[in-house]
Amino acid sequence: MLRSLRLRPKQARNDKKYMAKEKNNEKMEKIVSLCKRRGFVFPSSEIYGGFAAVYDYGHYGTLLKNNIRDAWWKHMVQYREDVLGLDSAIFMHPTTWKASGHVDSFDDPQVDCRVCKSRFRADHILEEFDINADKAPLEEINKELDKLRKAKKLKCANCGSTDLTPAKRFSLMVKSNLGSPTDELAEENVVYLRPETCGGIYLEYKNTIDSLHPKLPFGIAQVGKAFRNEIVARQFIFRTREFEQMEMQYFLHPSMMKEKYEMWKKLRWDWYLEYGIKSEKIHWYKHDKLAHYASEAYDIEFDFQSLGGFKEVEGIHARGDWDLSQHAKFSGADLTYFDEKTGERFTPHIMETSVGLNRLFLMFIDQAYTEEPSSAEASEGKEEVRVVLKLHKNLAPIKVAVFPLLKNKPVLVEKAKAIFDELKMEFMCEFDDNGNVGKRYRRQDEIGTPYCVTVDFDTIEKDDTVTVRDRDTMEQVRVKIKELKEYLKNKLSS
Amino acid sequence: MLRSLRLRPKQARNDKKYMAKEKNNEKMEKIVSLCKRRGFVFPSSEIYGGFAAVYDYGHYGTLLKNNIRDAWWKHMVQYREDVLGLDSAIFMHPTTWKASGHVDSFDDPQVDCRVCKSRFRADHILEEFDINADKAPLEEINKELDKLRKAKKLKCANCGSTDLTPAKRFSLMVKSNLGSPTDELAEENVVYLRPETCGGIYLEYKNTIDSLHPKLPFGIAQVGKAFRNEIVARQFIFRTREFEQMEMQYFLHPSMMKEKYEMWKKLRWDWYLEYGIKSEKIHWYKHDKLAHYASEAYDIEFDFQSLGGFKEVEGIHARGDWDLSQHAKFSGADLTYFDEKTGERFTPHIMETSVGLNRLFLMFIDQAYTEEPSSAEASEGKEEVRVVLKLHKNLAPIKVAVFPLLKNKPVLVEKAKAIFDELKMEFMCEFDDNGNVGKRYRRQDEIGTPYCVTVDFDTIEKDDTVTVRDRDTMEQVRVKIKELKEYLKNKLSS
Repeated sequence: MLRSLRLRPKQARNDKKYMAKEKNNEKMEKIVSLCKRRGFVFPSSEIYGGFAAVYDYGHYGTLLKNNIRDAWWKHMVQYREDVLGLDSAIFMHPTTWKASGHVDSFDDPQVDCRVCKSRFRADHILEEFDINADKAPLEEINKELDKLRKAKKLKCANCGSTDLTPAKRFSLMVKSNLGSPTDELAEENVVYLRPETCGGIYLEYKNTIDSLHPKLPFGIAQVGKAFRNEIVARQFIFRTREFEQMEMQYFLHPSMMKEKYEMWKKLRWDWYLEYGIKSEKIHWYKHDKLAHYASEAYDIEFDFQSLGGFKEVEGIHARGDWDLSQHAKFSGADLTYFDEKTGERFTPHIMETSVGLNRLFLMFIDQAYTEEPSSAEASEGKEEVRVVLKLHKNLAPIKVAVFPLLKNKPVLVEKAKAIFDELKMEFMCEFDDNGNVGKRYRRQDEIGTPYCVTVDFDTIEKDDTVTVRDRDTMEQVRVKIKELKEYLKNKLSS
Repeated sequence: MLRSLRLRPKQARNDKKYMAKEKNNEKMEKIVSLCKRRGFVFPSSEIYGGFAAVYDYGHYGTLLKNNIRDAWWKHMVQYREDVLGLDSAIFMHPTTWKASGHVDSFDDPQVDCRVCKSRFRADHILEEFDINADKAPLEEINKELDKLRKAKKLKCANCGSTDLTPAKRFSLMVKSNLGSPTDELAEENVVYLRPETCGGIYLEYKNTIDSLHPKLPFGIAQVGKAFRNEIVARQFIFRTREFEQMEMQYFLHPSMMKEKYEMWKKLRWDWYLEYGIKSEKIHWYKHDKLAHYASEAYDIEFDFQSLGGFKEVEGIHARGDWDLSQHAKFSGADLTYFDEKTGERFTPHIMETSVGLNRLFLMFIDQAYTEEPSSAEASEGKEEVRVVLKLHKNLAPIKVAVFPLLKNKPVLVEKAKAIFDELKMEFMCEFDDNGNVGKRYRRQDEIGTPYCVTVDFDTIEKDDTVTVRDRDTMEQVRVKIKELKEYLKNKLSS
């Protein structure tokens, strides 16, 4: 029961197809291909044969991810009076994860194939046979596996062998020797890479109170990396061993829980709509199995075409006073709060909003990825498919691309560079003079650039205007150069 | 000679006072105290007794650090045509660090005190006796230590004991079991946390070329965490085991090295001046001991009052084709570049700019921290010292603080909240109604807020103006509310 609510029940829920080879999802293939081809996401360490379940973000991916992060931060910290920021380290005192229960029970039941060395989650195997083994003791899991083995139903999903090991507990905690006085990786020197970012928030609750004196209710928010030794990590960037979380812990008197919980549910829901997620693509998932300390747990699930259905992106959970009580118990520190108005001293209750930045990245691309019959705009009459990332303008990696109509006309190139140099101070821009304008449009469509600006001979010879082309409508308008920045500013903020 | 140039020579240079107990530096004490008291930087895991050489950034610290990061990113990526962004993972294929030479020789000679268990760097011990042991073989170091031992000169700086171990190599590489198929921390499963971020840039050089087709010369820039098992990590956030780097690797034809090296030296120097660093506070340090592959290496050093003199903040190093050649050799991948214009195929040379984000944080606070005799503004006639962080406006964590003159007058509070709600959409703002206005000014001065806006009875009853108070001059002007946003925008961008 110590086990964290986070991710565990949902994981079982989401990963049903554990044993069937991952379905070839056409949408996923297209997204993975676009991400690689256009410099959004690369598999890690490819030149060395790869490093499983870890990804690198290329130029456009980094820009998109940063924009999602900043959109979250603005709404969670900048626009609020009651939420403070934090950036706590990945490493913490190891007792942190004793107190949280992670050292003792943040693990999954693992089964190995002795022939091909594939690894599986035992609870997922059982789920395939409609046996719910979520949180079941290892002994029970093995009893069920034995029954299947005797019935000759138990086979490796990869190679078909029946030679599978019994289930054993496999810790999801990633270990390290940081700060160890010897080079050896001895168990007594183990420190953990955090499996979730909120641990740092609990540990800095007291310093935050002592230095900034916030009054309850208030929140602490942070963005950062976390690490889990997932047994099976697939689904592109949806579940990886190194990932980024954006978590906010809201501290309050228990009497306010109901009201604030509803407030945050609404705020978080609205955030998705604000950034262009269609309301029919998200829904609430209500947990019915709750940890003993939790009073309410809802997730926002998004209908991923690339993953074949609704999957969790964000959890909004009422966690009681469990976290601060545990850390107070294990550290001996006083983590109570004294309310000057009521004279009451108590351990604040917590509700959290917890979201995976990489999952949001996949979500936004999943919805934005669009194929349309191409107009004649660039295909010279041929029937073509236009691939366009219809990302919200605030999230698009590049806001404005600037082109000279022709690369070999210095007068056009110079003018276009001058425009680029002015606009880049305001927006993330790109200068492109490769190929013809049609091809450049295709490229900018694929990376989701809302506006393309072209300098042509009319610009120079006639009226000092440029063409501004809209990503979604493909409409082109002429805009005076001296009004261009304001025009784009208005367009991009509307 | 495989050893990375990075940080090693400078470390010896900077850490001369290894054995004398760290001098009580008054400026450092004041900065550490301010950082804790005002919520900039907290020691990690304090409630659990601390976790050495790791720090957490509180609300204002996170905002300041993010602003420094964004200022770097804007100049290095957004404002440039020739630099692309990247966000590669902390974990990479372990062969990466074989190729770079880190696994075999990124280590320091360590001496332990058998009595009090203090740990020292042997080369620093020898430097105290004016023996330069930088990069010396272990054997020679131990010969020198033995001489000192026989002369009864060798003592533990902490407890005075003469019972010190011989020197042994201690790897700075932090190990982990991420992705390991077992829970055990066995040597054969070791993967490393990156000791520097540039490794990810080298590994993604090929994917970047293949997806974005940049022409040489071009750079790849990234911000991220790195980890080193420093034997002795002191000096607050100047040297920590978990830290953040901002690195840019610029790929070019060797014939362009001289020109581009000078260009980047100037660009980086100007960046410091742009953000308010006084030119007399920085200088160039030229390396005379170069790694065999390097052709030039300069550092920017800042004159830290808190550290008693000039210390490295940034390195600008010409590294030849060493990095790509090594990774090509170890991976078998083709990392050459084909120049379409000249028909030449070659391995690009690299020059890098590498800076520590946490060091820049300390640098900006070191220069910004100012004590002035207080005016009568808030001290009610008493002689007081005004502590003010004179940070560059673009870096200040909070741009504008908004106050109602009195907390208990709803008409003032409502008006102030309305102003806050408008301004927060544009700037990072803070609403404060605690204590009196004088005390609020003191608090905002200590966190470096450029402007404070106060709503008073004149606002309501007379002319719809507010008081805007300047952090540095302490001058107050009345500004019409409807002109306030534009007024502040202009002030903050000037």
